[in-house]
Amino acid sequence: MKIYDFVGAPNPRRVRVFLAEKGISNVPFEQVNLATADNRKPEFLKINPMGGIPVLELDDGTHIAESVAICRYFEDLKPEPRLMGVDAKDKAVVEMWNRRMEFEVLGMAAGSFRNTSDFFKGRIPQVKEYGEVCKNAAVKRLEWLDTVLADREFIAGSRYTIADITALIGIDFGRTTQIRIQENQKNLARWHQAVSSRPSAKA
Amino acid sequence: MKIYDFVGAPNPRRVRVFLAEKGISNVPFEQVNLATADNRKPEFLKINPMGGIPVLELDDGTHIAESVAICRYFEDLKPEPRLMGVDAKDKAVVEMWNRRMEFEVLGMAAGSFRNTSDFFKGRIPQVKEYGEVCKNAAVKRLEWLDTVLADREFIAGSRYTIADITALIGIDFGRTTQIRIQENQKNLARWHQAVSSRPSAKA
Repeated sequence: MKIYDFVGAPNPRRVRVFLAEKGISNVPFEQVNLATADNRKPEFLKINPMGGIPVLELDDGTHIAESVAICRYFEDLKPEPRLMGVDAKDKAVVEMWNRRMEFEVLGMAAGSFRNTSDFFKGRIPQVKEYGEVCKNAAVKRLEWLDTVLADREFIAGSRYTIADITALIGIDFGRTTQIRIQENQKNLARWHQAVSSRPSAKA
Repeated sequence: MKIYDFVGAPNPRRVRVFLAEKGISNVPFEQVNLATADNRKPEFLKINPMGGIPVLELDDGTHIAESVAICRYFEDLKPEPRLMGVDAKDKAVVEMWNRRMEFEVLGMAAGSFRNTSDFFKGRIPQVKEYGEVCKNAAVKRLEWLDTVLADREFIAGSRYTIADITALIGIDFGRTTQIRIQENQKNLARWHQAVSSRPSAKA
């Protein structure tokens, strides 16, 4: 088993933080250099035709792409601590919050970066105006997230879950295009401080 | 228990097809009119601050938004037939394929529609050029999906899963902006014919 990884990109960090929270430290990582577009080379496209990182390679040769699919595999393999919910209702609530954080925070931060940064210039068709739409949406969602966190400790309720991991990496990645927690967003700042202080955040 | 629904939108259809495949027919639906933006009214934003449809309301008042979160709830409640995988590896594979279909097919069809259709004019900041990027991406992904289906019956392998449901509603929704299966895409056409013939496709 190994994981194709790239230190510096948000989705691979999502899986590394998840594994750190699980206490899983024996999976080797192999770096795929996104800076030189190694993930777009034919050898890698055989592993993941979408070109995305991370990818989990199982011992039987199966490749699991998509961060959340990889996390789900490890949640099944080593259920405790539960990061994706404990029963039918809780699992659905965690999935709802994780998806909100994916689409509204991480997705918008990524949309902002992909469409405006020099990193993607010439690699993908960039639409700067759409990057601005994404950035504005992310800024607005952080305002809303601050109100959500007024009466709960973590994103999906009273327990740390994968939704916190997605929000953390989404917010941290937002810095690349100046999407930041504002000074008046005290609840969001308190939450960010708490999740960033966990050892897993360094993964 | 009830589901806030809107006949005509892709995500609510995703949940209806899922329930039909599960043989669950006793959940009442309440229509929320997206055409008159009832999903953006304050009463509905209390139910789902994102304004999205569908939303599952449980008897204890909990609201589960996000189609896949709703599907997961019913997968736990009534496991058979399994639509989200049978063991750790299979669950991860199904999730990977479902996400690919979400981001690459449904997401691109939705991005094309949202950014170019009159339906969203004045509701969201539309960027026509980004709509074209989405459309081109979707067209390219259907070419790829045709090759994937050359040696397997369904999207995630030999069994019908939620990934087929997401692909079906994504492809059908693509018609709104002329994203269509091409005549030379025989595998994709064969698969589309098969999944469209199931009684659930009418849900």
